[in-house]
Amino acid sequence: MIMEIVGELINASRKKIRDDIKEKNSKVISKVAKDQYEAGADYIDVNAGIFVGKEKDYMRWLVKTVQETIDAPCCIDSPDPQVIEEAVKVHKGIPMVNSISLEKERYENMITVIKGADMKVIALCMSEKGMPYTKDERMKIADKLVNRLVSNNVAIENIYVDPLVQPIGSGDNLGIEFLNAVEQIHEEFEGIHTICGLSNISYGIPARQFANQTFMIMAITKGLNSAIMNPLDKKMMANIIAAEMLAGKDQFCEKYMNAYREELFNF
Amino acid sequence: MIMEIVGELINASRKKIRDDIKEKNSKVISKVAKDQYEAGADYIDVNAGIFVGKEKDYMRWLVKTVQETIDAPCCIDSPDPQVIEEAVKVHKGIPMVNSISLEKERYENMITVIKGADMKVIALCMSEKGMPYTKDERMKIADKLVNRLVSNNVAIENIYVDPLVQPIGSGDNLGIEFLNAVEQIHEEFEGIHTICGLSNISYGIPARQFANQTFMIMAITKGLNSAIMNPLDKKMMANIIAAEMLAGKDQFCEKYMNAYREELFNF
Repeated sequence: MIMEIVGELINASRKKIRDDIKEKNSKVISKVAKDQYEAGADYIDVNAGIFVGKEKDYMRWLVKTVQETIDAPCCIDSPDPQVIEEAVKVHKGIPMVNSISLEKERYENMITVIKGADMKVIALCMSEKGMPYTKDERMKIADKLVNRLVSNNVAIENIYVDPLVQPIGSGDNLGIEFLNAVEQIHEEFEGIHTICGLSNISYGIPARQFANQTFMIMAITKGLNSAIMNPLDKKMMANIIAAEMLAGKDQFCEKYMNAYREELFNF
Repeated sequence: MIMEIVGELINASRKKIRDDIKEKNSKVISKVAKDQYEAGADYIDVNAGIFVGKEKDYMRWLVKTVQETIDAPCCIDSPDPQVIEEAVKVHKGIPMVNSISLEKERYENMITVIKGADMKVIALCMSEKGMPYTKDERMKIADKLVNRLVSNNVAIENIYVDPLVQPIGSGDNLGIEFLNAVEQIHEEFEGIHTICGLSNISYGIPARQFANQTFMIMAITKGLNSAIMNPLDKKMMANIIAAEMLAGKDQFCEKYMNAYREELFNF
């Protein structure tokens, strides 16, 4: 698959996972990592953010536990540079860091860890002024953030810009403004990645999964090439495979044909 | 719905319908017209092309039969200008004509009927050189065809450009080249419509309906605002409603919410 998928399920904000992390239940964490990996995840997100004071310890354990099970990099998900620094020490391969933004304090804290290191970084289109709504607001932040990261020796290929999805229920244009930002980011910065957790689009409306699946196809059409998502959502994965094939990213429709043979299109 | 839908089911190339037309079975034709109309069709395509020598008679009968049942215009589907001329005589409201192209003989024949008349016209991106493959080939034909139609007093709003979908199985880029043509046509000609029968995209690959449904969402993302299709395909209709909502074309998500309440998203 061309799209890079960050499996989102190992996150302490999920009640079940929270208990498993607390008890250091490596059997469950290993299984959730393995399931996501086998379903197509390229990175396994690990988040222990709710354990104040113990985040560092849990994060180290999570990285080790995931990488003892599968041969995949983690996406280290923390706003705390010290937590990231510790997690990176035990991490094998090139990790992804989730995330930096243009907010002054967050940028300055995070860049100390990222600067010069060989890691991927998720760059949120967020500034002191808060969340962006229009394409132009997103582009203003993206321009500043990407240029600043590049000037701090972060390779453009390692930057994953997240234009931030806003709920369509809050404004009819919040979907298209996001999509157009994805398109323009790829036009302006060759080799860059775009990424998002797109389920926010359907916050407050019914048939959320259906809306999310539709929005994924639209985002791929505009160039989105990475996503933080649940790779166990079979319909979503099938949509990605079909959309990438139709977008000309699947030579001889090979992945599409394989997915069909593996009965991934039987919903 | 923003997208204009041309219901494609009354077509003599379909075995069952062929017999019903031959027997002038108005009960069946009325029902197929009504079913499509109630499912959301804006135009009812009528095609009696296989009845050589009798097409004119059958076409008149089809237009009358459809319009005695429902209050909707027809899409008169014939390459023969005389057939269209006769059908238009019995047609109420503003018809759509399917279709003209840049092929010399076809253009010259069809323009005599269309010129100065108040009708919508489907303009195929086809020339003497055959079918187009790339976006640029489509744009070259579209530019010439649209300009020629406008110079023959066809209003831009009445032109429905069909960039012609080619099977993805014949080339990995045939989907994206089509999609990019849709986008560019809307950029170059304000107020114009794009239209297509998109099922050709999946010719030769498996899971055709799934591929078609995915491609529809991608085409809407690029601006497609009309389609020749089966409006009884519930999943396809649901995809259109969701994609248009996410593209900012559904104020306060009203159509989406209504569709949800009417259980149109229960596949």
